[in-house]
Amino acid sequence: MANLRSSSSPRKTTVKTAPSILFHACSTDTDMLYFSRFNASDPYLAFTIGNKKFGLAVPMEFSRMQNESAFDEVLLLSEIREGAVKQFNLPKGSMPDDCHVVRHLAKIYNIREFLVGSRFPAGLAFKLRDAGLKITAAENGELFPQRQCKTADEVKALRKGNRASAAGHHAVAKTLTEAKIRNGVLVHQGRVLTSERLRDIISMATHAEGAVALDTIAAFGDQACDCHNAGTGPIRANELIVVDIFPRRIAEGYWGDMTRTFLKGNASDAQRHLVRTVKRGHALGMKMVKPGVTGGKIHQAVEDFFAKEGYKTVKNSREPEGFFHAIGHGIGLDVHEGPSVRPNATQKLKKGMVITIEPGLYYRGLGGCRIEDVMHVTQDGGEKISSAPYKWEIA
Amino acid sequence: MANLRSSSSPRKTTVKTAPSILFHACSTDTDMLYFSRFNASDPYLAFTIGNKKFGLAVPMEFSRMQNESAFDEVLLLSEIREGAVKQFNLPKGSMPDDCHVVRHLAKIYNIREFLVGSRFPAGLAFKLRDAGLKITAAENGELFPQRQCKTADEVKALRKGNRASAAGHHAVAKTLTEAKIRNGVLVHQGRVLTSERLRDIISMATHAEGAVALDTIAAFGDQACDCHNAGTGPIRANELIVVDIFPRRIAEGYWGDMTRTFLKGNASDAQRHLVRTVKRGHALGMKMVKPGVTGGKIHQAVEDFFAKEGYKTVKNSREPEGFFHAIGHGIGLDVHEGPSVRPNATQKLKKGMVITIEPGLYYRGLGGCRIEDVMHVTQDGGEKISSAPYKWEIA
Repeated sequence: MANLRSSSSPRKTTVKTAPSILFHACSTDTDMLYFSRFNASDPYLAFTIGNKKFGLAVPMEFSRMQNESAFDEVLLLSEIREGAVKQFNLPKGSMPDDCHVVRHLAKIYNIREFLVGSRFPAGLAFKLRDAGLKITAAENGELFPQRQCKTADEVKALRKGNRASAAGHHAVAKTLTEAKIRNGVLVHQGRVLTSERLRDIISMATHAEGAVALDTIAAFGDQACDCHNAGTGPIRANELIVVDIFPRRIAEGYWGDMTRTFLKGNASDAQRHLVRTVKRGHALGMKMVKPGVTGGKIHQAVEDFFAKEGYKTVKNSREPEGFFHAIGHGIGLDVHEGPSVRPNATQKLKKGMVITIEPGLYYRGLGGCRIEDVMHVTQDGGEKISSAPYKWEIA
Repeated sequence: MANLRSSSSPRKTTVKTAPSILFHACSTDTDMLYFSRFNASDPYLAFTIGNKKFGLAVPMEFSRMQNESAFDEVLLLSEIREGAVKQFNLPKGSMPDDCHVVRHLAKIYNIREFLVGSRFPAGLAFKLRDAGLKITAAENGELFPQRQCKTADEVKALRKGNRASAAGHHAVAKTLTEAKIRNGVLVHQGRVLTSERLRDIISMATHAEGAVALDTIAAFGDQACDCHNAGTGPIRANELIVVDIFPRRIAEGYWGDMTRTFLKGNASDAQRHLVRTVKRGHALGMKMVKPGVTGGKIHQAVEDFFAKEGYKTVKNSREPEGFFHAIGHGIGLDVHEGPSVRPNATQKLKKGMVITIEPGLYYRGLGGCRIEDVMHVTQDGGEKISSAPYKWEIA
């Protein structure tokens, strides 16, 4: 039907039949947050008609949604439900479910097709399809590919996220400088310094910068060879400590993500060579960031450099070693988002994208080293938007 | 086919053909967190066969997933992908997508049907159905209705969450006690005390208790009549301040949720009567909590009490007033979860459930009052697992 109509009057119906984007989510769905700029802990419905954004509010959220969101029009859910009761001849006073509500919206706004993101709830999607609505999933689940290119305000928010990250690293450097070594482990302010305690110190520092760091990594020795191991127990002297701090700004919702590797005491030659090599790989990767280059190319260049320097990588194994993770990732409202900056990633970087560069090398027995900064892709290169010292060996 | 087989040999095939639960999520999906007890910021696949839980790990997560998760078996994603490449004759070295991976799992584990939760990604669900797999959405989206009844450990974690909430309320009481009144607004430590500053003070207090409070409400005067308005600007003397603190414990992921209403200066008779009435409604609701009672009955009793006391409620309006929100909600890994404790909720409370009781009354011109505690349903009644003073008028 839609096809027939659009062929008879293409210009008019192109707009009319463009699919309406449909959400049923709260702000943990970052596409919904990007779309609505509205902070809500309970899922709610929202949709588009052309460029116009509609949000459905329960009465107690109506006024806040009108004042705080990016919606062009806020509908009162209870009124839409009343309409659905009539349309479907439901018993008076009954509560139509989300499926009825969406079907009623489709009727009153003459919507022929809904486009949903990859995170749209499958249960509701099935019901809507079973009820005869056309529900299409966005290609690759990406409703807003434009999210990858940040506005000036978004870059500013990402700088703030990284300032919080840097505050964490400053606190670590200060703590390690103040710490003493007793029987091979670190002691700070009269207490044994554990990974857990160091994370608390980091958490307080990021919090003072208006950001929350939930999954900070402060892993020493072989622990760091599982790169998402948060670390546990008394920190030993003369071992590499990988500190990866990715806090999220409470106010704007954008992340920082910076890694530094430290060592308290005296490093061995092998540790020094490892850190120096990662630092050189980091510099190489950072320098390559510019419009037109692919994430895959950056990854490959750093992987090749490490191999040339004699650092072997084993990837698809239960105990991977060397440089076995991606060189980076896009960052924004999600800590990991597009563009892809992985082996074989073919998408070209564009002005406005913000990505991490985080080479690492990990070998059981020697430990791990990772160094990570955040780059904003500019007109003709990259601009580092994270800043903390690289001093790592602390006597 | 499955039906035919189960009728010929019911006992055996009931187990064999029981649907396999399927996840593609990270730990922001609390069902996934409940299922896996594994902290992951990137989505990954997991499934069940009978009572056995399987997780799919990328190489860099393999060892951590083995050590930290509740999975009975951890599969290496790269190995499953290799199998999928063979099964589907994909070009060597190519990367099978999630749909191929799930289809390969279905083949090697002889899975006939997958059961998914309401938050399963619609995009992948559509692809799997298009590929001929049977994908069923769990009734009401609830994969684990047993989540509503908490274990002793979960109740302990919820107590910790509420301890963090209480720490916030103690900090508020202390701040308001220390504050002075200058030209009708509060001044604390030489600075005008704003809602924003009060939230910072709360945030630091909850953080010291190992919990993160992101969306704290500290709204005074008419602001509080939008019950999710966080509050803004210099706090005025002699106005009701609704303070709703719901922090999440970093370690366990369980929430606290407590509301107190304060006033700095002198309350009017109307404010005193409002607060006294809400407190009586609160006591009434708390007393009703026991196995067998429905959330709807508790709500109705408190709504009737307020009406009898002369407090009028307007619900389905753009400017609702009176007692227009639910009397409570279940709380656990989600701040709002089952059981429903709303008008007309028919589900009976059961031992082990944990719910909030939070009556409130709101009138523009007078302001709002809400008082909220958390109740654990016991064998024969309810046990309050949140504790902070109710003193509200601070001279």
